[in-house]
Amino acid sequence: MGLTLYTYWRSSASFRVRIALNLKGLAYESVPKHLLRDGGEQRKSDYLALNPQGLVPGLEHDGVFVGQSLAICEYLEEIQPEPRLLPGAAADRARIRAMALAVACDIHPLNNLRVLFYLRREFGQDEEGVNRWARHWIATGFEALEQLVARHSADGRFCYGSQPTLADVFLLPQVFNARRVHTDLAPFPRIVGVAEHLLTLPAFAAARPEMQPDAE
Amino acid sequence: MGLTLYTYWRSSASFRVRIALNLKGLAYESVPKHLLRDGGEQRKSDYLALNPQGLVPGLEHDGVFVGQSLAICEYLEEIQPEPRLLPGAAADRARIRAMALAVACDIHPLNNLRVLFYLRREFGQDEEGVNRWARHWIATGFEALEQLVARHSADGRFCYGSQPTLADVFLLPQVFNARRVHTDLAPFPRIVGVAEHLLTLPAFAAARPEMQPDAE
Repeated sequence: MGLTLYTYWRSSASFRVRIALNLKGLAYESVPKHLLRDGGEQRKSDYLALNPQGLVPGLEHDGVFVGQSLAICEYLEEIQPEPRLLPGAAADRARIRAMALAVACDIHPLNNLRVLFYLRREFGQDEEGVNRWARHWIATGFEALEQLVARHSADGRFCYGSQPTLADVFLLPQVFNARRVHTDLAPFPRIVGVAEHLLTLPAFAAARPEMQPDAE
Repeated sequence: MGLTLYTYWRSSASFRVRIALNLKGLAYESVPKHLLRDGGEQRKSDYLALNPQGLVPGLEHDGVFVGQSLAICEYLEEIQPEPRLLPGAAADRARIRAMALAVACDIHPLNNLRVLFYLRREFGQDEEGVNRWARHWIATGFEALEQLVARHSADGRFCYGSQPTLADVFLLPQVFNARRVHTDLAPFPRIVGVAEHLLTLPAFAAARPEMQPDAE
């Protein structure tokens, strides 16, 4: 199929796409872009020509470049429908997408590396201020997601129903991020339970940051 | 069809959904949720029971509730495929989604009302600090989008190709937000040109904040 993934081991958006590729059983070539080294390899002109946003992940497939982790996952769903990341009827898919977006739009953009850098540089925040900020948005988002998992999970193993979906693809990397900034996860037992179960599945476990060739 | 939209006139995510409903020619009932009055009507228990995130927009359709503007747009695309918000082949749809997500994930979450409140309250920022922050992320995102419009627009009227797509649905409300915080749009002539053209179309013009029944 000729899939190339531009990735960084610690990027949680890249982590999502690695999970999706693994769930679909799609082999791919990894091209690491180190986000910190040398001003950020993702900001070099060769990569900017592909992706003017200068962000990872990016996927190349038969000469087509796709940026944005959710757009990549939807693209994979179209070119390789099975196993489905968005199973069920339109209403199921809508609810699954909404859970993924609660992470993609309402949590993750706020604890992105470039945002934390801005808070330090422009607003004079130290590591504790920045981590408190990150934990605030994670906890706010997880409070809602905890209820959505209670409502939609069949048995506590997955976010929605009884199989892995796009919601799980987005949840697990966010749990990793939450732990990095020392978020108290005690109020979110269902999220923690789903994350623990997901890590028993090879597609999720193999996508972890520390398993990547560019891990430090 | 029985569509109810929970909305707020100034919410740019609600603005997106109003455009999408108008483009599809779908009639809907508006239920305004005032985001500021009385601690935020979207945080009252009746709405939280529908949407644990306590955010607008939300769409109800035949007993199904869907949150998150992008999940709502994708749902509308499934229940009412024409006219298509995601036309073309899988590669086109991926690029259109990526442009919408560049707004939905990389710009808008950072200049959301609740985020600006946090910056004032916790980091002691005044209006100028908060607007500078908002303008920074808008300009960063628009720099990339300006190039993507150059690459993908057929003739400068739309973000992608020669018809309205999901990318336009997300771009126009962000241009409104950009103006509210006095962003210099001179470096983004293509974005401004697309926005100007979109406002000549009834589906976009009727969705403007000031045209809503709850506008102040």
